[in-house]
Amino acid sequence: MTGPTALAPVMTADEINAYVADVYPQLTTQHGEFVTTEVFPGGCVVRVEAGERHFRAGDTVSGPTLMTLADMGGYVCVLSHLGRVPLSVTVNLNINFMRKASAGPIDAHCRILKLGRSLLVYDAELVWGRDRIVVAHATGTYSIPPGTVRP
Amino acid sequence: MTGPTALAPVMTADEINAYVADVYPQLTTQHGEFVTTEVFPGGCVVRVEAGERHFRAGDTVSGPTLMTLADMGGYVCVLSHLGRVPLSVTVNLNINFMRKASAGPIDAHCRILKLGRSLLVYDAELVWGRDRIVVAHATGTYSIPPGTVRP
Amino acid sequence: MTGPTALAPVMTADEINAYVADVYPQLTTQHGEFVTTEVFPGGCVVRVEAGERHFRAGDTVSGPTLMTLADMGGYVCVLSHLGRVPLSVTVNLNINFMRKASAGPIDAHCRILKLGRSLLVYDAELVWGRDRIVVAHATGTYSIPPGTVRP
Amino acid sequence: MTGPTALAPVMTADEINAYVADVYPQLTTQHGEFVTTEVFPGGCVVRVEAGERHFRAGDTVSGPTLMTLADMGGYVCVLSHLGRVPLSVTVNLNINFMRKASAGPIDAHCRILKLGRSLLVYDAELVWGRDRIVVAHATGTYSIPPGTVRP
Repeated sequence: MTGPTALAPVMTADEINAYVADVYPQLTTQHGEFVTTEVFPGGCVVRVEAGERHFRAGDTVSGPTLMTLADMGGYVCVLSHLGRVPLSVTVNLNINFMRKASAGPIDAHCRILKLGRSLLVYDAELVWGRDRIVVAHATGTYSIPPGTVRP
Repeated sequence: MTGPTALAPVMTADEINAYVADVYPQLTTQHGEFVTTEVFPGGCVVRVEAGERHFRAGDTVSGPTLMTLADMGGYVCVLSHLGRVPLSVTVNLNINFMRKASAGPIDAHCRILKLGRSLLVYDAELVWGRDRIVVAHATGTYSIPPGTVRP
Repeated sequence: MTGPTALAPVMTADEINAYVADVYPQLTTQHGEFVTTEVFPGGCVVRVEAGERHFRAGDTVSGPTLMTLADMGGYVCVLSHLGRVPLSVTVNLNINFMRKASAGPIDAHCRILKLGRSLLVYDAELVWGRDRIVVAHATGTYSIPPGTVRP
Repeated sequence: MTGPTALAPVMTADEINAYVADVYPQLTTQHGEFVTTEVFPGGCVVRVEAGERHFRAGDTVSGPTLMTLADMGGYVCVLSHLGRVPLSVTVNLNINFMRKASAGPIDAHCRILKLGRSLLVYDAELVWGRDRIVVAHATGTYSIPPGTVRP
């Protein structure tokens, strides 16, 4: 069986937040308030507290904010399931924007679709608001550097 | 003939920069130094001056910075060829990251592939450094709100 | 609430199969054995019976076969939830291939992510074999022609 | 310099056509008349002679036909620049459909955007008709199997 159910996290949300603040401080200083809130076998949840600084024309959350969240979700998929692999990088990201989000927490629910030899594929559903509407959906691929030690 | 050669810009780069600073100030305050440097029939060039604030782990330009640049390129395709349409929004963006970029200007060379009734499709080639290497390639779609007056 | 749970099918799987055979006979004569097996609120399941005619080098199911299945899934999302809209067309499709499939049924489990005014966005998980492994994952967008009567 | 200009083909269009007919006969028997017409440093041109068998509802060329052409273009990018690598497979394909095509030759003009250690990234512009209109644009990624001998 090669499905995500065989996967097991090796870092907690707190450990990931501390690690990201250390190796990628710009994420928070530039983009603001991105945190990992949950880690589970085969996936994770990453959150941004959206506010005016994340808005674009029309007072809705900007595309770049949602893309940053979706991309961060893939990085946390890698970290949570492979451990400290700072140099894993995005190979591809595809995102569909479906509805408008405004202020408040936006959660990216991420699932690892494949954890292969050299690539991790995931998808992310971005939900916002009291009604948990899906505001965007993304799929992405991260590279796993050669020589990465598997947990 | 429906190709891009029939297209003609209706705003200059300076007009676009002033307009974006007005309707989307977060672009510059949050993400830093994104400017339109060129507008031509069927396309545009958008630039970010990449510096440490745009880095991720590994001291290379982060994915979110490049996605923001590619997304901005689509917005400028809309503005430059349709005029002031602030509420045009991204529908889809797909990006492939190919090489690492570091400090210095990164230019997104954007081409309008289709300017339809309700959608604009474009691609963007992101080039960096003295050797003008292609660091990423994106395609995207922007919505054109109903009722937009065509130039 | 704008989520998929508010959606309701207006055609059965049998009605869709008869309709597609009528308006798009090439699907079956050229590509072979694509059928809708299930329709439910907010989604559908489309199946191909993969055999040697669908193979590529390496005796695995070809990319074009899986892309056809994923694309067909979006068409059936439209038909099942909007009725007979033959001229709805694909606007965008993005697909990640994750594992190899061989002979036997492959099912595309499709979910409508957004049914808007002029666009339908969906995703499709393609599963194969006794272990139901996910061999590919796609997201796509179909246009809804102006003037389409809503059920 | 890492750009495509450093690339050089190692197979001719005729050699590729003979090779594909041998290892992937289904391409022609199932999908019909896909041929490589040109190979050049950093890219290639692949053609389908579209006819009624490639149509969908509305008597226009179907999405699966255009996706097959775009995918085939990536395979020919690999073969033409790396030689006989039958088991190179598609990892990701993203395609935007922009205009309708009908009967006649459709050419996929393909460019290698990156030829890396384990992945080849390319884009394809699909043009049709006397006016050479762009009917679709795709970007894709092929895997390069470990152990592939570089020319």
